Amino acid sequence: MSSMQLSPSISSSSSAIFGQKSFNSRTFRASIALKRSGVCKCVATPEQTAYTTKVARNENLAKLQAGYLFPEIARRRGAHLLKYPDAQVISLGIGDTTEPIPDVITSAMAERARALSTLEGYSGYGAEQGENKLRAAIASTFYKGLGIEETDVFVSDGAKCDITRLQILFGSNVTMAVQDPSYPAYVDSSVIMGQTGQFQKDVEKFGNIEYMRCNPENRFFPDLSSTAKTDIIFFCSPNNPTGATATREQLTQLVQFAKRNGSIIVYDSAYAMYISDDSPRSIFEIPGAKEVAIETSSFSKYAGFTGVRLGWTAVPKELLYSGGFPVAKDFNRIFCTCFNGASNICQAGGLACLSPEGLSAMQDVIGFYKENTQIIVDTFNSLGFKVYGGKNAPYVWVHFPGRSSWDVFAEILEKTHVVTTPGSGFGPGGEGFIRVSAFGHRENVLEACRRFKQLYK
Amino acid sequence: MSSMQLSPSISSSSSAIFGQKSFNSRTFRASIALKRSGVCKCVATPEQTAYTTKVARNENLAKLQAGYLFPEIARRRGAHLLKYPDAQVISLGIGDTTEPIPDVITSAMAERARALSTLEGYSGYGAEQGENKLRAAIASTFYKGLGIEETDVFVSDGAKCDITRLQILFGSNVTMAVQDPSYPAYVDSSVIMGQTGQFQKDVEKFGNIEYMRCNPENRFFPDLSSTAKTDIIFFCSPNNPTGATATREQLTQLVQFAKRNGSIIVYDSAYAMYISDDSPRSIFEIPGAKEVAIETSSFSKYAGFTGVRLGWTAVPKELLYSGGFPVAKDFNRIFCTCFNGASNICQAGGLACLSPEGLSAMQDVIGFYKENTQIIVDTFNSLGFKVYGGKNAPYVWVHFPGRSSWDVFAEILEKTHVVTTPGSGFGPGGEGFIRVSAFGHRENVLEACRRFKQLYK
Repeated sequence: MSSMQLSPSISSSSSAIFGQKSFNSRTFRASIALKRSGVCKCVATPEQTAYTTKVARNENLAKLQAGYLFPEIARRRGAHLLKYPDAQVISLGIGDTTEPIPDVITSAMAERARALSTLEGYSGYGAEQGENKLRAAIASTFYKGLGIEETDVFVSDGAKCDITRLQILFGSNVTMAVQDPSYPAYVDSSVIMGQTGQFQKDVEKFGNIEYMRCNPENRFFPDLSSTAKTDIIFFCSPNNPTGATATREQLTQLVQFAKRNGSIIVYDSAYAMYISDDSPRSIFEIPGAKEVAIETSSFSKYAGFTGVRLGWTAVPKELLYSGGFPVAKDFNRIFCTCFNGASNICQAGGLACLSPEGLSAMQDVIGFYKENTQIIVDTFNSLGFKVYGGKNAPYVWVHFPGRSSWDVFAEILEKTHVVTTPGSGFGPGGEGFIRVSAFGHRENVLEACRRFKQLYK
Repeated sequence: MSSMQLSPSISSSSSAIFGQKSFNSRTFRASIALKRSGVCKCVATPEQTAYTTKVARNENLAKLQAGYLFPEIARRRGAHLLKYPDAQVISLGIGDTTEPIPDVITSAMAERARALSTLEGYSGYGAEQGENKLRAAIASTFYKGLGIEETDVFVSDGAKCDITRLQILFGSNVTMAVQDPSYPAYVDSSVIMGQTGQFQKDVEKFGNIEYMRCNPENRFFPDLSSTAKTDIIFFCSPNNPTGATATREQLTQLVQFAKRNGSIIVYDSAYAMYISDDSPRSIFEIPGAKEVAIETSSFSKYAGFTGVRLGWTAVPKELLYSGGFPVAKDFNRIFCTCFNGASNICQAGGLACLSPEGLSAMQDVIGFYKENTQIIVDTFNSLGFKVYGGKNAPYVWVHFPGRSSWDVFAEILEKTHVVTTPGSGFGPGGEGFIRVSAFGHRENVLEACRRFKQLYK
């Protein structure tokens, strides 16, 4: 997948991503015009005569290997639909929520929207860090007794956006570690910020990133004794894509590891509410974590806010750079300079999510998706596959030993019209696996499972 | 203002920004505990024994001189209120909209919010670039006949956020030029991305940024014959803070200048709808601009969306890096990796803004603010001040020759309880000026003007 590195004249394979179709048609019109006017004195094609600026392309963007994973999956889904226009395609791929948002939450957003038409209800710029009420509600709901206060919480338009803001915070001169496999935004944003070397095709890794392999052999927790020291450690639990959830003992090891090395952990807890055993729901449950960790999370998978956009990042005041400067103070500057706060309407939704009715309604939706997960786990188990994840996470991680993930992805799409996600899209450690998302209407999940049984019986 | 560079133990002057108060109180509690337990064997203070990570602070953030301008203004407003708890403070400072959003727009948002509770109306992740309908409506409303198509438009959560995304796009190795004075996010985001040198106190400028002086002498259009060549040129018209609007001839010069140098113009048109003469409303009205310019804009000042958050950036497919690679293709990658789309509810609001009723309602609100502007302009004119801007912009730029902007800001706040913005906050070229924003309820604008007349009669 090196189409992003080709010159524009031969890069039409990635055209669907941003509508290069019209780019081509413009060129086409230009050729026609040239021919009609009869002025065709030169042999140069219109592409070659196009004006170019003297600004060099950002070399970090050139390092990226292909389109971001999920738009690429969407592109393949689109191509499949063109090939089979009548197919009933079911998407268990992108991890996109499908169930309606509980009334108590949308009512609050509708009410806030309407109030913006009144003199009393109108509000303009809010605090970049979020409304105090919501910051307080997040602190007391998710971090009660853990020493995370209202002022430590930065409300945002989602964890994915915060990951980039954290990379801007750290800058180009840090080193980072990621679980392998992991959510691709960690690595891609690191590449974009210039923290990495080139992509090394032989190992399918970027230089200067520490890939912490997580697989069935180590029960999806990295071998820290062989993990290199880095400035930053991205860690997601319950994990996307493997669904693995770190135990209290494992997280204690992780915090001790970070403390020994002086590293900062960026802990992604976007799936914490899916935990049904006694695994920690926040890194801050681990003693000492406030001195080494940042936590980022989101309403996306709790309240179906994938399209609404609302998340948060907690940066403890105890977290200090080597010189003693508080990390939160710089993160606050990033929030004020590079962001202007989450939408006031969406913040009203977030506040409703954290009311007693909202919390109970969110639990119902999460419970529904967890039933889906069980159906998918049971299906693959019954077919004799090794299945991981699923227990504390909406993702099922299915092993196809010895096979290429993209081949399995293509086989499943071609033969069952079900979209999954190839494990290798999450890093080389995902090769041989497929991630099946439990986000879907019940009848679609049941139908997808029927088709899986047909294919792999 | 160098408090951001002090060590944490003596940086309490900037504590209000992110609540260092609680940081101090924690330390305080720790000292108490030590004393009570009688275990006080060492002379070290708790600050000195605090654990620090080994991660170095991002040196680019350390270059920044103070808090971002507008939170700093808010902080001073807060301090003033503490000093005069009964004062009727009027804010004509931050440029924050105050008038309710027209019903036709909030109804669309409320409806979209409510629909998210239904099976048919629910939507999860949208396209990162925005919904096609909205992209098409933006293209046809603001760029009709200019060759900017739906696929060139990236819908975002606001122009300020897009400015940082553009800086991420360009990376650390570009040089940039800004109007002086200008909206501080251009310079600050450039500093954060590592494009600049240190702050030079003698000239009040960052190294490696080309400051294009705009003042009454050059009618607020820079002398391009003495402007150094840079990769990127930030240009805002109607300008924030001066309110100056570039003519067609001036913008043609700017485009030719960029073309000669191979530069990319980032054109900020966030106030274009305030133009009432025949000045261009988009850089793309200038022939050839699509090969050298990006345009960023926002619903904030048109529809009162400062708290709702919705904007866009148009990146023409004709804009190419030196090697021929399309800039839009990399910007698309940034959008997909570092962002997840604007809120679906806010996008419904944007679409309603661009309906015939929405456009007419927005024009009414803009007309109201333009009346405010005239009241402010007339007031300062009547007091004998030289007044600039105001005609095509919601900002009035008042000259106080020979005086420090911060002194004038403080004088006005102290004596009239009106918050303005000191011109030097926008760059050294703003020294000696005050920006008065026309965003305010009519009675507040009238009252502020009465107080100005009292003070400066």
